[in-house]
Amino acid sequence: MHPFDKAITLKLMDDGRFRGQTSPDYANMIGPFGGTTAASLLQAAMQHESRIGDPIALTVNFAAALADGDFDISCRPVRTNRSTQHWSLELIQAGEVAASASAVFALRRDTWSAPEAVPPEMPSAHTLAPLPSGASVKWVSRYEMRFERGGLPVHQDSEMQNNSETRMWIRDEPARPLDFVSLAALCDSFFPRIFVRRRKFVPMGTVSLTTYFHADAALLLKQGDRPVLGVAQAKSFRNGYFDQAAEIWSDDGQLLANSNQIVYYRE
Amino acid sequence: MHPFDKAITLKLMDDGRFRGQTSPDYANMIGPFGGTTAASLLQAAMQHESRIGDPIALTVNFAAALADGDFDISCRPVRTNRSTQHWSLELIQAGEVAASASAVFALRRDTWSAPEAVPPEMPSAHTLAPLPSGASVKWVSRYEMRFERGGLPVHQDSEMQNNSETRMWIRDEPARPLDFVSLAALCDSFFPRIFVRRRKFVPMGTVSLTTYFHADAALLLKQGDRPVLGVAQAKSFRNGYFDQAAEIWSDDGQLLANSNQIVYYRE
Repeated sequence: MHPFDKAITLKLMDDGRFRGQTSPDYANMIGPFGGTTAASLLQAAMQHESRIGDPIALTVNFAAALADGDFDISCRPVRTNRSTQHWSLELIQAGEVAASASAVFALRRDTWSAPEAVPPEMPSAHTLAPLPSGASVKWVSRYEMRFERGGLPVHQDSEMQNNSETRMWIRDEPARPLDFVSLAALCDSFFPRIFVRRRKFVPMGTVSLTTYFHADAALLLKQGDRPVLGVAQAKSFRNGYFDQAAEIWSDDGQLLANSNQIVYYRE
Repeated sequence: MHPFDKAITLKLMDDGRFRGQTSPDYANMIGPFGGTTAASLLQAAMQHESRIGDPIALTVNFAAALADGDFDISCRPVRTNRSTQHWSLELIQAGEVAASASAVFALRRDTWSAPEAVPPEMPSAHTLAPLPSGASVKWVSRYEMRFERGGLPVHQDSEMQNNSETRMWIRDEPARPLDFVSLAALCDSFFPRIFVRRRKFVPMGTVSLTTYFHADAALLLKQGDRPVLGVAQAKSFRNGYFDQAAEIWSDDGQLLANSNQIVYYRE
């Protein structure tokens, strides 16, 4: 079993909740990688017997640092329409809400479609060196990241950059075919914009994360386990909070998802 | 009383819920303008006796078309930390959830801060003609909108555009000092990107809307009731759903909020 699938394994309990556990493979500085937490919440709705369609939107509010160990997810279909379904979710640990989430699923139909944004020009993935395994916290080794710009600061307190943009090729490590849950996790796989901009580590934590899925299942299947293009940048750092806008592109230039987050920082 | 304040007036009920009612001043094609719905949900948390700090993030999921008339908002502080507070909200009409929402509030502190995105160059507001009052549905007359680009299609089925960008000066009509709730509504005041791109009207509805507040109360106070700069664009239109990324800038070039939404369309 792939470590990602192991990390997001949920067991349906008698009370209707799903039980999961944090995975040492995706350990962060404190507690687990937020991407697997987001993916576990999405997975609960994916596995729910009432679910219709594919995910369109996912918002996760990180209310507290998760502790390593078990957690329960409550998952409630708030409203089901003809083609859309709204979900409300809570991740509970030690009797308290550690994360809340909402998700929208939908049955998509063929309509007039058109791209608008375009991906940046990128060199081929194989021409960029992957970030060495063991370079950072544990979850980072579960991705193969090849930075064109905006990687981790190599030297602490090196000169501040004038922008926080990252462009990278990224895939699960070991390789794993892309699906909605792994895409949800990928959207949170960018190093904090403030590390990139300031070229140093400061205490921070994502407060709220929203992902829109532009890809349907067929498009994800076509991407398979090849690296996707990730782009991320902040718009503003101000009095304890900065945002991040991220895009995940297929290797043939289609927008698979875009994601925004707002992040707390301490100094 | 300003029509906006009237539209978002809530009354605390004995059961702890807030009761509001849709306002004819902000009527949309069907039901009320989504911006006032979002603002009413934020207002419920603002008015709650347990609230700490100012809004940082707001996500509203529009689960069904609101009917004109009364609605109730349930508003629960999910978790309160030292400096952040997470809220879960539901807007209920006729016993069913018509919208769900989450909000994050925080006590901000002075920290290292830096802008990153920059606003587009714009001509002064007074040099652009305002959209005539009565040009569209009722809520539109509650804003003074001056488009530099990307206004409403003048002729149905005129030539499709190759992008959906809007740049406009906008303020409440009549003028009203900016605050968090009016800023939340402004973030939903852009005409649907698909109208701008395709230069025609198609059936559509916002499914989920997320707003990040970069401004604190002092910055909003400084802006007063002068027009703010609004910028919006879609990244992708695909099989029934498109996104919109929007920014609201102060007239001296500071990012007050950025907002994203995912929107259903039918054809």
